[in-house]
Amino acid sequence: MKIGYLGPRGTFTEMAVQTLFDDKNVLKPYRTIPDCMDSVANGDMDAAVVPVENAIEGSVNVTLDYLIHKQRLEIVADIVVPISQHFLVHPNQRDNEIKKILSHPHAVAQCHEFLRSSYPGVEIEYMTSTAAAAQWVADHPNEPVAAIANEQAATSYQLDMLEKDIHDYDENRTRFAVLAKGKLSLPPYQVEPYTKKTTMMVTLSSDFSGALHQVLSAFAWRKLNLTKIESRPMKTGLGNYFFIIDVDCEADDVLIPGVMQELEALGCGVELLGSYPCFFHTSLKLTEASSV
Amino acid sequence: MKIGYLGPRGTFTEMAVQTLFDDKNVLKPYRTIPDCMDSVANGDMDAAVVPVENAIEGSVNVTLDYLIHKQRLEIVADIVVPISQHFLVHPNQRDNEIKKILSHPHAVAQCHEFLRSSYPGVEIEYMTSTAAAAQWVADHPNEPVAAIANEQAATSYQLDMLEKDIHDYDENRTRFAVLAKGKLSLPPYQVEPYTKKTTMMVTLSSDFSGALHQVLSAFAWRKLNLTKIESRPMKTGLGNYFFIIDVDCEADDVLIPGVMQELEALGCGVELLGSYPCFFHTSLKLTEASSV
Repeated sequence: MKIGYLGPRGTFTEMAVQTLFDDKNVLKPYRTIPDCMDSVANGDMDAAVVPVENAIEGSVNVTLDYLIHKQRLEIVADIVVPISQHFLVHPNQRDNEIKKILSHPHAVAQCHEFLRSSYPGVEIEYMTSTAAAAQWVADHPNEPVAAIANEQAATSYQLDMLEKDIHDYDENRTRFAVLAKGKLSLPPYQVEPYTKKTTMMVTLSSDFSGALHQVLSAFAWRKLNLTKIESRPMKTGLGNYFFIIDVDCEADDVLIPGVMQELEALGCGVELLGSYPCFFHTSLKLTEASSV
Repeated sequence: MKIGYLGPRGTFTEMAVQTLFDDKNVLKPYRTIPDCMDSVANGDMDAAVVPVENAIEGSVNVTLDYLIHKQRLEIVADIVVPISQHFLVHPNQRDNEIKKILSHPHAVAQCHEFLRSSYPGVEIEYMTSTAAAAQWVADHPNEPVAAIANEQAATSYQLDMLEKDIHDYDENRTRFAVLAKGKLSLPPYQVEPYTKKTTMMVTLSSDFSGALHQVLSAFAWRKLNLTKIESRPMKTGLGNYFFIIDVDCEADDVLIPGVMQELEALGCGVELLGSYPCFFHTSLKLTEASSV
């Protein structure tokens, strides 16, 4: 099977890929999330692995927005990976004063407290990924510049870990989606799924008071447990949103179709984005999903 | 009055500031949103003006998260500003092939279609603001580098507008919050408010099915119109969220306290973040808020 993922090598997405797909599969890194999703739509790849949500930073908006507005693929699996960030320098720069810090904006945000207390006022430059930051540092051994990136990047680019685990919050995780064109037969699981989920997109019927309350009623009286509700802009103007709703069960023949038919009859737009097994990276213990 | 805002000069935040505060006030740009909010908390400034939400990109997470988790200030006003992005180069580089494009990640995302069709594969580098991108281009007249920024930045830094209005969606707006320590007497309005809103933070009582539905019921049966509901991570683990709820009315003595008391009695955490007038930038016509 051919799997595209958000590259470069050495990112957390690669850890997600390795949870489900061993190296008998073709694994190809892409430069951006849209490029990665396009590769499935145009048939170059069978599936794409992209980040959807981080426990600290929240949803990865470019993934949700591109999925909804541009390239509708089906969610066929979901993988949770633990996130640890480290402060990496070139061995030549170990004892020098660091003048600039490079990383992805999400990683910078995850290490906000560390940066404020240990490197106040030091220039921060955003890169397209944590691995790209590590690579830049490796390529410029004479510049007093550090990268915030993961252990895999430290090893790949032979950088020194000047400080370990500099992220502000423990329990940091990122959730990745496996996207495909229609149903995809996943390879034999390397780990067992801990639950199954169903994801829907709902647009509200019209500009009336209590519309979202009415939508949630359709789930609540059926005791369908929601694990997430996310509002995203329709991109038609401030105040216009659609909602992405995760339900903690597999799509059945009765309850989920019942919800969808009722919401449509009430004038909402409803689309099933996928019903799929959920996995943890092998380094994580099983825990239950929460409710909203 | 002393007003801190997300700088540098030439950003959309400065346009928001000028909507409410003329130059008889002291206006001071800050480098980051947290620095700007800290300046009010420590008494250096009377109020901070920071972005909260963009019509295309959604909420500005660093503002919401810093407000909730780190520096609790009161929302005392809300200002909506129109967003137009342009492709700026140094006059020396007008006829050269552009090798790199600089801008803030939000602005890059807002011009995604333009970049893919007109500059596919050209390197993109993220800057801390659109104005910082324009300044870099102005400071490097011999580099074939372009900035995505607004008209104010083009004028300030004397750059050529190679392409105008390159943003993917019209109707793009950003909403800014004015934050203060407790109630603040705003100066005499330069424009009249178009509505009043109340913002609350709600955490759910416990991990049970239908909790959010129950919260919305407290608003729905009182016919309190919600204009926005946003879920953000609690930062305690994937699946744990709090909700920011905007109600389309001023906090009264009966209905809003009624909602808050009931939700507390049900075991939710409820905090009033502010009840405040809402303004449009002078270039925008009045429109109504939508409901959710």
